[in-house]
Amino acid sequence: MSLSNPADSAPDYIRNLPRYVPGKPASEVKREQAKPLRLHRMASNENPLGVSAKALAAMQAVMADAANYPDPSGHQLKARLSARLRVEAQQLVLGNGSSELLDLAARCFLRAGDEAVYSQYAFQAYPVAIHAVGATPVCVPARDYGHDLDAMRAAITERTKLVFIANPNNPTGTLLDAAALQRFVASVPRHILVVLDEAYGEFLPDADALHSCDWIAEHPHLLVLRTFSKAYGLAGMRVGYGVAHPAVADLLNRLRLTFNTSAMAQAAAEAAFDDADFLQRSRGNNAQGMAQLEQGLQTLGLPFIRSHANFIAIDVSSTGRSGAEVAQQLLAAGVIIRPLGANQLPQFIRVTVGLPEDNVAFLGALKQVLS
Amino acid sequence: MSLSNPADSAPDYIRNLPRYVPGKPASEVKREQAKPLRLHRMASNENPLGVSAKALAAMQAVMADAANYPDPSGHQLKARLSARLRVEAQQLVLGNGSSELLDLAARCFLRAGDEAVYSQYAFQAYPVAIHAVGATPVCVPARDYGHDLDAMRAAITERTKLVFIANPNNPTGTLLDAAALQRFVASVPRHILVVLDEAYGEFLPDADALHSCDWIAEHPHLLVLRTFSKAYGLAGMRVGYGVAHPAVADLLNRLRLTFNTSAMAQAAAEAAFDDADFLQRSRGNNAQGMAQLEQGLQTLGLPFIRSHANFIAIDVSSTGRSGAEVAQQLLAAGVIIRPLGANQLPQFIRVTVGLPEDNVAFLGALKQVLS
Repeated sequence: MSLSNPADSAPDYIRNLPRYVPGKPASEVKREQAKPLRLHRMASNENPLGVSAKALAAMQAVMADAANYPDPSGHQLKARLSARLRVEAQQLVLGNGSSELLDLAARCFLRAGDEAVYSQYAFQAYPVAIHAVGATPVCVPARDYGHDLDAMRAAITERTKLVFIANPNNPTGTLLDAAALQRFVASVPRHILVVLDEAYGEFLPDADALHSCDWIAEHPHLLVLRTFSKAYGLAGMRVGYGVAHPAVADLLNRLRLTFNTSAMAQAAAEAAFDDADFLQRSRGNNAQGMAQLEQGLQTLGLPFIRSHANFIAIDVSSTGRSGAEVAQQLLAAGVIIRPLGANQLPQFIRVTVGLPEDNVAFLGALKQVLS
Repeated sequence: MSLSNPADSAPDYIRNLPRYVPGKPASEVKREQAKPLRLHRMASNENPLGVSAKALAAMQAVMADAANYPDPSGHQLKARLSARLRVEAQQLVLGNGSSELLDLAARCFLRAGDEAVYSQYAFQAYPVAIHAVGATPVCVPARDYGHDLDAMRAAITERTKLVFIANPNNPTGTLLDAAALQRFVASVPRHILVVLDEAYGEFLPDADALHSCDWIAEHPHLLVLRTFSKAYGLAGMRVGYGVAHPAVADLLNRLRLTFNTSAMAQAAAEAAFDDADFLQRSRGNNAQGMAQLEQGLQTLGLPFIRSHANFIAIDVSSTGRSGAEVAQQLLAAGVIIRPLGANQLPQFIRVTVGLPEDNVAFLGALKQVLS
């Protein structure tokens, strides 16, 4: 296999794409343990309540039909979204998670040589999506671990075609002021697409809830992305959605794979979207767990970034160890979390809010690390 | 919503992408019928036997874990594929159906201005994938409704970076001679990727079975694509795979979405791949159904293209009606098939081999059309 092959002549921007290094799967952690421990999955911002029973029932109901192609337009799911969000069905695009949609946005609106602006400490998938089409990622330094909107506005040039914003931000959990965010969107020229990634928006209390879909009528260059992977508990099913001006949604729908969301994913998302009780319990568990973690961290004397999502970024530099070293020690205690070295925050770890017992286990293991 | 928006300044190759016009969903056909009929789904080359019971059981077993992200590397499924196909795991890439993989191949190996060669009457997704990256599709006239390999070789220029071949071909069902195909691959310069789409390969009798994976060691510019959507009965789950030189597979794996196949899709595919009995029954049903359809068509005096897949393309020009008109009439009888106007074959329809009763229903409805 030492012969020359087409990979040698692929474009540089493809050959330089990073390899994804997956976190250690729980099954592998279990295998490696000397004595099996209960594992606490607190690395991937998954819903610790699991899947809504209504979503499971909906999946069960369509499972036997898995030999047939899904509805390529996702008609029923879109009808639910359309009614609840008060947007037209033509403004919607479904994706294999919202991660497919940010990829599609880059492919639709960026060419080789164009620029796209994003924030330091924002979701790592943004620069990858920009690189993957041969465009130039412009990373704007963060302010207080969040987006510096003034600096991002100033970074927009004639070559800019796209801006990524994560709100709340992952992995730092910061939240932008809604009025400031809307002013920012209004200030961006209308030929530039603003991708507003609200993957964690459902965890906000009602007072902070985002009304960004309502902004699209006035700001036709806004694409709002949301997902069923987090608060709705369906990370394994791969479904998210985007809301935009009909012309923007139309391009994304034309470029996406015809059958990008499975029939079971559509059915599960529809049921989860209607399961207000499950969502309420997810939010309640998250609010309580966040308070539990904050209090525990304060007791341990570890600084953290105030988070508006379902995870919290913790500065572990006072332990004298890097985030990666702390993660390794926690893993030995059965607690799986994420060190943030790859996000340029080597002294931080990110911990997903778990069930009360997960949070206790994490805080206990962290105390051991400190002692 | 009449304001200018980013869609106006998206690249031409994006704005000119075709809109997918989905076939009529069975649920809608049912709604529109004056008196409800049993529907015969013979439009999308789905498996009429449904899903393997073993695949259903595997899906059931992992369903409750749907709140957690899938294994991004698809380790277990790749291990099965690797062992059976006698290739290394690093030669494999999983996709959201093989359709994602042909899209990824275009994005990895084509830039704006490059050329990609494909055959007239081949799978419609090829020119779309080529267009979507701003490259130039070079369509080579078919020979006897199949690929003209000599003409395709002659169409390769200095700007060619990719060649698509469907074998058996969709929608015509033609099969290339294996030795001729291997000679063709050998004749293509090694910096050009040859994408060999074998979505229907599992329907071939053992004597014709393709051994293209074995060619990769000698031909490192070959990417073989297969799917679980057809013979394995999992179109609704969205999973296919590619086999290539490790360097080619590595680029595709880097570009693909991290979580492109769901946990349930991986589990279902693994079980289906191991269910030799189900595959045998699918092939048996297909061989018998194909004979049944051929005989019926001969009796009706309608010419067809000899097919090596799970569908058959039929020339209906003797009816005095177009394929679209015939499709409309069959629909009224509850038989859903595909007219091939969009494939430049307006006088043809394509019919998926069904269960014996589906085939009877189709032939009966077709006889009505003729009378």
